Amino acid sequence: MDKLLVGVDIGGTTVKLSIIDIHGVMKTKWEIPTNTSEGGTFIVSDIAHSVEDKLIALQIEKDSVQGIGIGAPGFIDVGKGIIFEAVNIGWKNFHLKDEMEKAINIPTFVDNDANLAAVGEMWQGAGHGAKNLLCVTLGTGVGGGIIAGGEIIHGESGMAGEIGHITSVTENGAPCNCGKKGCLETVASATGIARLATELLSEYSSSTLQEIYNQNGTLTSKDVFDAAQEKDALAVNVVNQSAKYLGFALGNLANALNPETIVIGGGVSKAGDSLINSIKEYFNKYAIPKIAKETVIRTATLGNDAGVYGAAWLAKHK
Amino acid sequence: MDKLLVGVDIGGTTVKLSIIDIHGVMKTKWEIPTNTSEGGTFIVSDIAHSVEDKLIALQIEKDSVQGIGIGAPGFIDVGKGIIFEAVNIGWKNFHLKDEMEKAINIPTFVDNDANLAAVGEMWQGAGHGAKNLLCVTLGTGVGGGIIAGGEIIHGESGMAGEIGHITSVTENGAPCNCGKKGCLETVASATGIARLATELLSEYSSSTLQEIYNQNGTLTSKDVFDAAQEKDALAVNVVNQSAKYLGFALGNLANALNPETIVIGGGVSKAGDSLINSIKEYFNKYAIPKIAKETVIRTATLGNDAGVYGAAWLAKHK
Repeated sequence: MDKLLVGVDIGGTTVKLSIIDIHGVMKTKWEIPTNTSEGGTFIVSDIAHSVEDKLIALQIEKDSVQGIGIGAPGFIDVGKGIIFEAVNIGWKNFHLKDEMEKAINIPTFVDNDANLAAVGEMWQGAGHGAKNLLCVTLGTGVGGGIIAGGEIIHGESGMAGEIGHITSVTENGAPCNCGKKGCLETVASATGIARLATELLSEYSSSTLQEIYNQNGTLTSKDVFDAAQEKDALAVNVVNQSAKYLGFALGNLANALNPETIVIGGGVSKAGDSLINSIKEYFNKYAIPKIAKETVIRTATLGNDAGVYGAAWLAKHK
Repeated sequence: MDKLLVGVDIGGTTVKLSIIDIHGVMKTKWEIPTNTSEGGTFIVSDIAHSVEDKLIALQIEKDSVQGIGIGAPGFIDVGKGIIFEAVNIGWKNFHLKDEMEKAINIPTFVDNDANLAAVGEMWQGAGHGAKNLLCVTLGTGVGGGIIAGGEIIHGESGMAGEIGHITSVTENGAPCNCGKKGCLETVASATGIARLATELLSEYSSSTLQEIYNQNGTLTSKDVFDAAQEKDALAVNVVNQSAKYLGFALGNLANALNPETIVIGGGVSKAGDSLINSIKEYFNKYAIPKIAKETVIRTATLGNDAGVYGAAWLAKHK
């Protein structure tokens, strides 16, 4: 039997788990709740027990598992597998690799969840094995992962890949949680898109978004994309602005990194082809012509499974 | 005796050569003219003869030379050592690695000259061994090299590191040779700085630059830096604009790549501390606060020798 890998993706609410073979075929996946009580003390033993139970249920010998890969949020020492700080989970200077190996006695490898989502798409998703890949996730925030020469780029303190904090609005940008202004995240995340639309409401006398706002007291990015689909002028303007800032940030990254493929994932990417096409248009304006011509931009295909695929890849390659 | 490396940096006018030991100590360096006649046919044998003569003169056995590293301009297949096109030299689909190995019978490795200048600074210059390094060269154009995790980032078609073509002027940027507008090169190269100053002449009623322009019919970047030193308002404005665009491009690259050090080289960097300090000020505005705090920005220290040091490093590591 082929060696197996366990891929784990730890989020603030649930832990996603999977068993994947070394060729990338998923055998099974499941979830357990993330127990964030007492500073996340129970998470490692919860994962260990859950994996052991699953192996028994599937009659898989522990020896057939080559390794466990884990994606975690926050600021990580990848070499040592230490989470410096993961606010949503409660960990601080948590030796995740050591603790997991002690609990389950299988070699464990840890990386940032956004990086592993990028790797997952590279290995089994929209990246199609590309060795040079940018992955950007448009969700509540904007996350990113960079693969160059087949390796995850971590940077000097593990902070590389912060595509969401590329300054895209050069003048009078909105303040960002990171402490600076005009970050891509402020105009291309679900939150940012809703904010842009809300700010522009007063400039458009008739917009379906005004009606929705009057009714709900708020707007969501889905409201904006739905209205843009119906050619609402305000919504079309907002989607166009987001696409422009994304095309600018990604075009400039491509000028520096010359990726084969750029994968766009996350909830916002479900807005579909019109967003991607609009991003491409601006990308072509800001990227070196040869790079604009050669770089493929496509939506992510693995959805929420990208993280566990990437985690399994990590266990395979380390 | 320690193994030796030959570092070669091929430019449009001269070929720089050096013998460097595996610890990075330079034994000797010299130059020969680049013979661009007949499509650059003679360059390889010129280099081979010159290296062999030098080894004899220094009584070094050929066996002590571990390898030859060569930096060349243009678009390169690094794996195969093929120069697709180097306009200044005349090569087209030139199998540099194979030809050199045939001519001198020493293993040869080839990379882009800007990448190797970055590696040179990493190994023996301002990079001080940093494994995560950005290098930007402000000369007639703006070149760049990116090192991540100790490796040169080449990208999918060997075009990575084109820092000079990051779009920095988002509206009404000047046209660039690359085919798009507003590239960093149009505002931060020697040519770009001279152009910015010339365009602004009419807006300043009294500037020493106007006198120089009247006298010479043209301005150079040196004129601008000299006048800025004397607090000429126009010159100070131009240097400030250049620094802003550099700080913007480098800050955003640092957000994505989290380098330890950014090295600024080339003729323009000789303008000194005032330029670097001004770049840092804008860098701090556009980089994530933690990255702004941790990233070191300094001027290159190897000057024209960066390329041969980098080439020797390549021969050592391949």
